[in-house]
Amino acid sequence: MLTQTEVEDIRSTAAALADAARTATLAHFRKPGLTADTKETTHFDPVTIADRESELAMRDILERRRPQDGILGEEFGPKSGTSGLTWVLDPIDGTRGYLSGTPTWGVLISVADASGPIYGLIDQPYIQERFEGGFGLASVNGPMGASPLKTRASCDLSQAILLSTFPEVGNEEEGRAFRRVAEQVRLVRYGMDCYGYALLAAGQVDLVIEAGLQTYDVQAPIAVIEAAGGVVTNWQGHSARAGGQVLAAANPEIHAAAMAFLNG
Amino acid sequence: MLTQTEVEDIRSTAAALADAARTATLAHFRKPGLTADTKETTHFDPVTIADRESELAMRDILERRRPQDGILGEEFGPKSGTSGLTWVLDPIDGTRGYLSGTPTWGVLISVADASGPIYGLIDQPYIQERFEGGFGLASVNGPMGASPLKTRASCDLSQAILLSTFPEVGNEEEGRAFRRVAEQVRLVRYGMDCYGYALLAAGQVDLVIEAGLQTYDVQAPIAVIEAAGGVVTNWQGHSARAGGQVLAAANPEIHAAAMAFLNG
Repeated sequence: MLTQTEVEDIRSTAAALADAARTATLAHFRKPGLTADTKETTHFDPVTIADRESELAMRDILERRRPQDGILGEEFGPKSGTSGLTWVLDPIDGTRGYLSGTPTWGVLISVADASGPIYGLIDQPYIQERFEGGFGLASVNGPMGASPLKTRASCDLSQAILLSTFPEVGNEEEGRAFRRVAEQVRLVRYGMDCYGYALLAAGQVDLVIEAGLQTYDVQAPIAVIEAAGGVVTNWQGHSARAGGQVLAAANPEIHAAAMAFLNG
Repeated sequence: MLTQTEVEDIRSTAAALADAARTATLAHFRKPGLTADTKETTHFDPVTIADRESELAMRDILERRRPQDGILGEEFGPKSGTSGLTWVLDPIDGTRGYLSGTPTWGVLISVADASGPIYGLIDQPYIQERFEGGFGLASVNGPMGASPLKTRASCDLSQAILLSTFPEVGNEEEGRAFRRVAEQVRLVRYGMDCYGYALLAAGQVDLVIEAGLQTYDVQAPIAVIEAAGGVVTNWQGHSARAGGQVLAAANPEIHAAAMAFLNG
């Protein structure tokens, strides 16, 4: 068990990381000449200078403030720790959204122990909006001030709002499974990147369903959504913390309803 | 020709309208219990109290400040004027985005004379970001301050970023035409509502292609994008100001390249 002092240090360190990442990412956001390297030739996956600078800024703070913790980041190699805690960092989740100037990419920061993520933070630098969850609290602080996060109460699948980043969800079979759920709901919206998980935690939508995610894409959303009362698993109902298929739901009822269509 | 005094009055009136619409829309945004009426039973088209209050607030200002102008709004009947100028208002463009809590819906305000829109404004209340164009100027004022708007220089279609709100663009034939362009470009993103047109004006993306739009959906984007150096027409290269199919492009070259694939 972490002491209250340790919890407070984790929270304030996470806030310092998010502040540094805000500065690093906004320094290049919507600037002329922003170029995108391509990590893989078969799949469009731009990695910008901003991405690397954002992660380096966060790693630098962790080296000074929490040298005993491990680090798992998108851009650089993993670092082992001795505390049993690992910081999982995605310096820009939604690099394609970032490159298109949208306000739906974000910075993902989380802390995991052996059981999985215990704290998470989703920051949208352009909007200056920060969602966090863990240690018994869930809150957002943004343009309309600070308020607690609470997922929606249960509704029928036919009344649900479903988000996903791209209409092409995963491979062919995964796409078919996604569409089985999509056909049942009231509204499907695309293009929200990690902001979709924040909207779910904030009680604005009922479901986010995606596939092909990495562990650094999901750990912060899991912590924030669970702290706000939601449920996040893979499509079989098991832990989603390693990434892959993700089914995030506002409550256990809508989670079960969606999972039934994903698998049948 | 409008005098400079008239131009300044139009600009300051538009700013007052946008401020009033910001207050009216944010009063209900992300609030619990936000309900959606359904105007048509065959198509999901929520109209909220916020939508009506936003338009009424704007009409109220126009009655006082510009009683001589006509008004064409989404929610209430058209009003004839004597000045030859008509205000075209969409109090919430992207009501489905609004209902989902996204930051990509917006308030659209434009002024048209017999030739079409001569001034336009796209406001995103939650981000507190305002894009405007007309009378020889185009600018944005938002979280990163104020700056001029300028569309992108020409690039090959294979390097272009294309936006559209929904992957299902228009009817079956329109959807096929859209996909012919989508297959050529580097990146397609969905879900941006009117914010997509603002991103095009801001030089962040190259193309926005949509179908089934209304006149109040397109007039402000046309004015803002044209003032920033872009081109907006229907899919046949004619005026898009009545709505329907819209092809918005960063420059004449990419416009021509996209139109060739739309039509064949």
